Amino acid sequence: MKIAMLGSGFIARFYAESLHAQRRKDKVVMVYSRSEENARRFAKDYGLPHFKTDMEAAIGHPDVEVVLIALPNHLHEEAVMACAAAKKHVICTKPLGRTAKEAKRMLDAVEQAGIFAGYLEDLCYTPKFLKSMDSVKRGDIGRVLWTKSREAHPGPHSDWFWDKEKSGGGAIIDLGCHCVEIGRNFIGKHIKPLEVMCWADTQVHPIDAEDHAIGLVKYANGAIGQFEVSWTFRGGMDLRDEVMGTEGSIWLNSFLRTGFEMFTTGKGGDGYVAEKAESNTGWLFPVGDEAHELGYPHMFTDMFQALEENREPLETFYDGYVVNAILDAALTSAQSKKWEPVILEDWRGDAPGENTVEKKSYDADHYLVKEEVLPNGDKKLILKHKKTGAITQKTTLA
Amino acid sequence: MKIAMLGSGFIARFYAESLHAQRRKDKVVMVYSRSEENARRFAKDYGLPHFKTDMEAAIGHPDVEVVLIALPNHLHEEAVMACAAAKKHVICTKPLGRTAKEAKRMLDAVEQAGIFAGYLEDLCYTPKFLKSMDSVKRGDIGRVLWTKSREAHPGPHSDWFWDKEKSGGGAIIDLGCHCVEIGRNFIGKHIKPLEVMCWADTQVHPIDAEDHAIGLVKYANGAIGQFEVSWTFRGGMDLRDEVMGTEGSIWLNSFLRTGFEMFTTGKGGDGYVAEKAESNTGWLFPVGDEAHELGYPHMFTDMFQALEENREPLETFYDGYVVNAILDAALTSAQSKKWEPVILEDWRGDAPGENTVEKKSYDADHYLVKEEVLPNGDKKLILKHKKTGAITQKTTLA
Amino acid sequence: MKIAMLGSGFIARFYAESLHAQRRKDKVVMVYSRSEENARRFAKDYGLPHFKTDMEAAIGHPDVEVVLIALPNHLHEEAVMACAAAKKHVICTKPLGRTAKEAKRMLDAVEQAGIFAGYLEDLCYTPKFLKSMDSVKRGDIGRVLWTKSREAHPGPHSDWFWDKEKSGGGAIIDLGCHCVEIGRNFIGKHIKPLEVMCWADTQVHPIDAEDHAIGLVKYANGAIGQFEVSWTFRGGMDLRDEVMGTEGSIWLNSFLRTGFEMFTTGKGGDGYVAEKAESNTGWLFPVGDEAHELGYPHMFTDMFQALEENREPLETFYDGYVVNAILDAALTSAQSKKWEPVILEDWRGDAPGENTVEKKSYDADHYLVKEEVLPNGDKKLILKHKKTGAITQKTTLA
Amino acid sequence: MKIAMLGSGFIARFYAESLHAQRRKDKVVMVYSRSEENARRFAKDYGLPHFKTDMEAAIGHPDVEVVLIALPNHLHEEAVMACAAAKKHVICTKPLGRTAKEAKRMLDAVEQAGIFAGYLEDLCYTPKFLKSMDSVKRGDIGRVLWTKSREAHPGPHSDWFWDKEKSGGGAIIDLGCHCVEIGRNFIGKHIKPLEVMCWADTQVHPIDAEDHAIGLVKYANGAIGQFEVSWTFRGGMDLRDEVMGTEGSIWLNSFLRTGFEMFTTGKGGDGYVAEKAESNTGWLFPVGDEAHELGYPHMFTDMFQALEENREPLETFYDGYVVNAILDAALTSAQSKKWEPVILEDWRGDAPGENTVEKKSYDADHYLVKEEVLPNGDKKLILKHKKTGAITQKTTLA
Repeated sequence: MKIAMLGSGFIARFYAESLHAQRRKDKVVMVYSRSEENARRFAKDYGLPHFKTDMEAAIGHPDVEVVLIALPNHLHEEAVMACAAAKKHVICTKPLGRTAKEAKRMLDAVEQAGIFAGYLEDLCYTPKFLKSMDSVKRGDIGRVLWTKSREAHPGPHSDWFWDKEKSGGGAIIDLGCHCVEIGRNFIGKHIKPLEVMCWADTQVHPIDAEDHAIGLVKYANGAIGQFEVSWTFRGGMDLRDEVMGTEGSIWLNSFLRTGFEMFTTGKGGDGYVAEKAESNTGWLFPVGDEAHELGYPHMFTDMFQALEENREPLETFYDGYVVNAILDAALTSAQSKKWEPVILEDWRGDAPGENTVEKKSYDADHYLVKEEVLPNGDKKLILKHKKTGAITQKTTLA
Repeated sequence: MKIAMLGSGFIARFYAESLHAQRRKDKVVMVYSRSEENARRFAKDYGLPHFKTDMEAAIGHPDVEVVLIALPNHLHEEAVMACAAAKKHVICTKPLGRTAKEAKRMLDAVEQAGIFAGYLEDLCYTPKFLKSMDSVKRGDIGRVLWTKSREAHPGPHSDWFWDKEKSGGGAIIDLGCHCVEIGRNFIGKHIKPLEVMCWADTQVHPIDAEDHAIGLVKYANGAIGQFEVSWTFRGGMDLRDEVMGTEGSIWLNSFLRTGFEMFTTGKGGDGYVAEKAESNTGWLFPVGDEAHELGYPHMFTDMFQALEENREPLETFYDGYVVNAILDAALTSAQSKKWEPVILEDWRGDAPGENTVEKKSYDADHYLVKEEVLPNGDKKLILKHKKTGAITQKTTLA
Repeated sequence: MKIAMLGSGFIARFYAESLHAQRRKDKVVMVYSRSEENARRFAKDYGLPHFKTDMEAAIGHPDVEVVLIALPNHLHEEAVMACAAAKKHVICTKPLGRTAKEAKRMLDAVEQAGIFAGYLEDLCYTPKFLKSMDSVKRGDIGRVLWTKSREAHPGPHSDWFWDKEKSGGGAIIDLGCHCVEIGRNFIGKHIKPLEVMCWADTQVHPIDAEDHAIGLVKYANGAIGQFEVSWTFRGGMDLRDEVMGTEGSIWLNSFLRTGFEMFTTGKGGDGYVAEKAESNTGWLFPVGDEAHELGYPHMFTDMFQALEENREPLETFYDGYVVNAILDAALTSAQSKKWEPVILEDWRGDAPGENTVEKKSYDADHYLVKEEVLPNGDKKLILKHKKTGAITQKTTLA
Repeated sequence: MKIAMLGSGFIARFYAESLHAQRRKDKVVMVYSRSEENARRFAKDYGLPHFKTDMEAAIGHPDVEVVLIALPNHLHEEAVMACAAAKKHVICTKPLGRTAKEAKRMLDAVEQAGIFAGYLEDLCYTPKFLKSMDSVKRGDIGRVLWTKSREAHPGPHSDWFWDKEKSGGGAIIDLGCHCVEIGRNFIGKHIKPLEVMCWADTQVHPIDAEDHAIGLVKYANGAIGQFEVSWTFRGGMDLRDEVMGTEGSIWLNSFLRTGFEMFTTGKGGDGYVAEKAESNTGWLFPVGDEAHELGYPHMFTDMFQALEENREPLETFYDGYVVNAILDAALTSAQSKKWEPVILEDWRGDAPGENTVEKKSYDADHYLVKEEVLPNGDKKLILKHKKTGAITQKTTLA
């Protein structure tokens, strides 16, 4: 694939390095930046034949097969519209929009243009996440009851993140988009997200948007997708997911505890440890290959394979739209202080049915509440009478 | 101390073993049980001189200096009242009451009787927790912003837990009492808990009460105390706490990952691994000394020292009452689906003032949003204009 | 028990705090120190009725039931002899002697005097170790093949450790005694240690003795007890044990990774984190209750229970003697650069027999080397012909 | 690159999957196997245009640019010689030879032929290892004193590993080659390995070669590279490295504890967890992307980049030869029971000089042995007199 990169900042550089690593055959051939200096520097750093300060010219260049939007959030819509107009395939950084309305306009535009449109939700492509999804789909942990996705660090790199107008908000829009989509994947994308309860506050930074939020997304089958996002965490970048199912649990730690531990007095060098690491002395927890741990290689592989194979990628603009709708509800809830419905005018999954929890019968008259072996070896059964509701206990001595 | 144990079940045995371990000088001398068989067996197992099936007789026995209530929740009030009547010092298993009203009556009774009354909140006495509190009090992690306490396992041992009338509810009353009090300690007991948002559901078990709940407790200084409780977790007993402060973080794992890891094919024995362990083959995570890891030795030491030194223990009946008030609000919120106030007719801490977040000034005109070192060594400052609110960025090339 | 403490330094204080904690009924009633100032200060700090600068007077005092030797290594023998002469029960800090000869004289003296003599090998009493021993004895990990015990830190507290004459050596005598005895316990104390191979070097400190050593102890049944000791480790106190058996494995981490993790910018206080912690900012790994994690409470409980019950403690002077004999061989090997025999003139365990590894037969003609399931589900058997020795493979397609 | 794969077994498949993953531009175009059925199946599975049962024909095919030797150990030399004869670039699976002599003949052949020759030591290419090497080279942990590399699992997949004639030995040649080269890299490849002490035994399996071994490699600068290898470990694949330096420590866990934890009752599926996982119920520790965690992508990237850039890869045939020489000494030592010299007729690194440990002076007359802060805040200095050797201590009260 020949790629045009829109943007030349932190994330554009991270993308370019991932794309050009490991002898991949795809190449960035064009960069667009508002600043000619930045565009030129980027093109030089990554050996690109072209750079432009005119977005349409960058997109329309005949060498460009697919456009990668690595711009601040408030510029996504304009860029997507330009791709749709030029009928160029597009892949767009998370979050898709600042609101569901914005996302919906982008979704409609790419669908009407008939172009390929991928949603760059990298944390749904980490190797640990992909392998977890295999387990969940295989049923290893039974019916998913609850997921928790947590992203917390001391705050983002670029100025525009801190500007509510440009970014669309604070930690919720920046980090919540990851966490919500991780939860949706584990619970099942076909299950409708019904309502959201969210707490948000500005606890530390002198900004208008929230720098810390916790939210619960309730799905049609009763499962809960919890998100925890913060720009106030001290200690590095905390990226953890948990899933509880009726037959098992999964715990993922993608950054701070990955089997790489190091103590240094700091007398050696003064090196870069990892994204958002806060210290370079004492006990440190580097990651081996950051791009890999964050899902970039597998994400781009899926995107370009999908494009070549004429199939949808794992993460689509429709997914980006659903995520935005959930985040909209979260922001509303943070204000209203109650559960708020997720408004999805375009729902493509299952109709919300009843969540039927199957109760385990012990015999004709009783449900089985619990069976257990005690420390002294005694075995205990706890039963509930189906009609009277009475709880009884049967113990078999060891 | 000479102790009367009220109750002879799982927790009473756990207490007795902790009390008689490690050459402690305190001794259980009496056990009361409704069942004579159980009382006799318990007295024999622990070498007690006395057992009774009459609670008042047990409490009133002249050898008894302090009464330890290890009864199901619905019997706490009756037992406390009997201690107050007999003017015998009392220490009571968590939760204090099934509701704040019940707890308040117990609190009033012991205060009027002038007896010592300790609240057996063991998880606020684990060695890790106590040492964490030292750090938090010393200011090592700055201002506490958020705490998360999680207790999750496949469900309790005894039948009465599953009976809403006897226990007072489900996972919230059983486990939430621990988690709420852990959060209160970290945030500061003098800070008033204002309101609670809680989700609760019965996801797995055939019971009336909730078997899974998540709650957020908002304190007067803006801090949030999150609790996560479940009787549906698979994998053992998940006991974890986290605290985020402006200058640091603390993560505690009290049961599943304590530096003890074991793989076994299971061909050896068929032994007891740990409370609520669900497997005895494959990778197992035993704990060295369960009672210690759960806080029992330090809890009883504090209780009896406090009694001898004529001071309050770390955990009092008043604490138990506040916890019940918070749990009441949680249950109300789970129904109303909105934040609910914590109703405390008897508040003994600070008056709720405004939570004043100090914004860091960079210079006369700007707040400092963030300073950072990028991978290429560039240094970046993000500033916010105090009047216009404009976000700007200053980069110093490496 | 009423205890006389011989010594008033770091370890004596650690012991006194453990003994007086948790409402234990045993009390230190006497302290002996060469320095009156130290003796007086110690007695004051721990509320002792007596202090002495005359060792015999301290031991002989009628209030004293048991003597706890907390002196530097070169003074153990003198103190043990004084206890034997006074017929006072004695418990002695590790290592028992500086050499096996010294240890043997102490062993003989206490046995001839008929006094109780316990060897204070605390790391064989940590709760994790004790619970591991239960598993190993129950057969959970099958036949023990190899153990590794590691103790490494930046170097000891007191000056005399660094003085080869007083301590008897360097890291081997200081730390190796722990590691060797941990291995002996796991492998079985009745199995004879036959020979030792050891590397030792002075890599960092300006001292005569070794500050780093690795040794292998070969036992009569073919099992290997590996020890890794160092005074050059950076990062705190690294206390880890591993055991491999034919049916399982055990990994213990007693200090650096026990489920207590903390990040701090260090702006709060300037507190003590843990023994030999090297930093108080960044990621720290405190332990909840150091004495407990190091085995002191369980050690003293066993010692005094044993004394009262007229049985041997888990760790005896005979064990101390065997450990010294193994360490002697290690030091010889470090010089000779070859395996050296463990010289035990007094061996009380099993006679060394042949180590008979039972080979698993697959059928009359073949041994089973391995059976395995491959990623594609194929099942594979690897067999060895009993007579020809030919290796063959049978694959069953999935 | 267009690659001919020699071999079609487990490792050949693992290589092919890594090479064709992540949109890499390099392609396997040819497979050679002794069995036509296997060759045909392999070519079909990976979409290769060619397969052969004649090794020379496979190597000599005009489409082939580089030959990847994925054959059992006893066939490496023949294959390398064929590449040299055909002047085709070659990359060869570890270990290079079964002995240093065999490796030396291969080294000489490729050097005389002037072809590119890479040594496929994948574990020196894992992302964690590469990032650790950056730290070590930058001086973050000071002077390296000791390294430990451990590889242990229940035994290899294919029959030929268990046949001493074909493989060249047991766990030492199979796994020790990884561990030795990891140690060499950390200590410095220019530092001469001088001698080796090794214990080896056949503890479990009915085979002639060792299934468990521990070795120490002493380098000219006094550093020790320890290896621990076993085919008897229960619990999966234990891949851990440790490095101790004067200013820090590094701990790597590449397989069993990488931040991916899962509990399952096993009621879901019956899936493949990870290479050499021994269980699919209970607590499991999968890895996200096995090939990545084992270093394959980074290894092939370095190999092909080096070939294109006309430079040496990180791991060369010369490295393979040095590793074989060290393993030869290990096997000799396991027999002789003493340290054995590493025989390197062709040494290309630094001449072995004296290892000069710089002693830290405190003042003109004293060396500084240690400085420390005690729990009570007292500060302590331990000094050694340069002439008399006397150890003294200075304490500053807090």
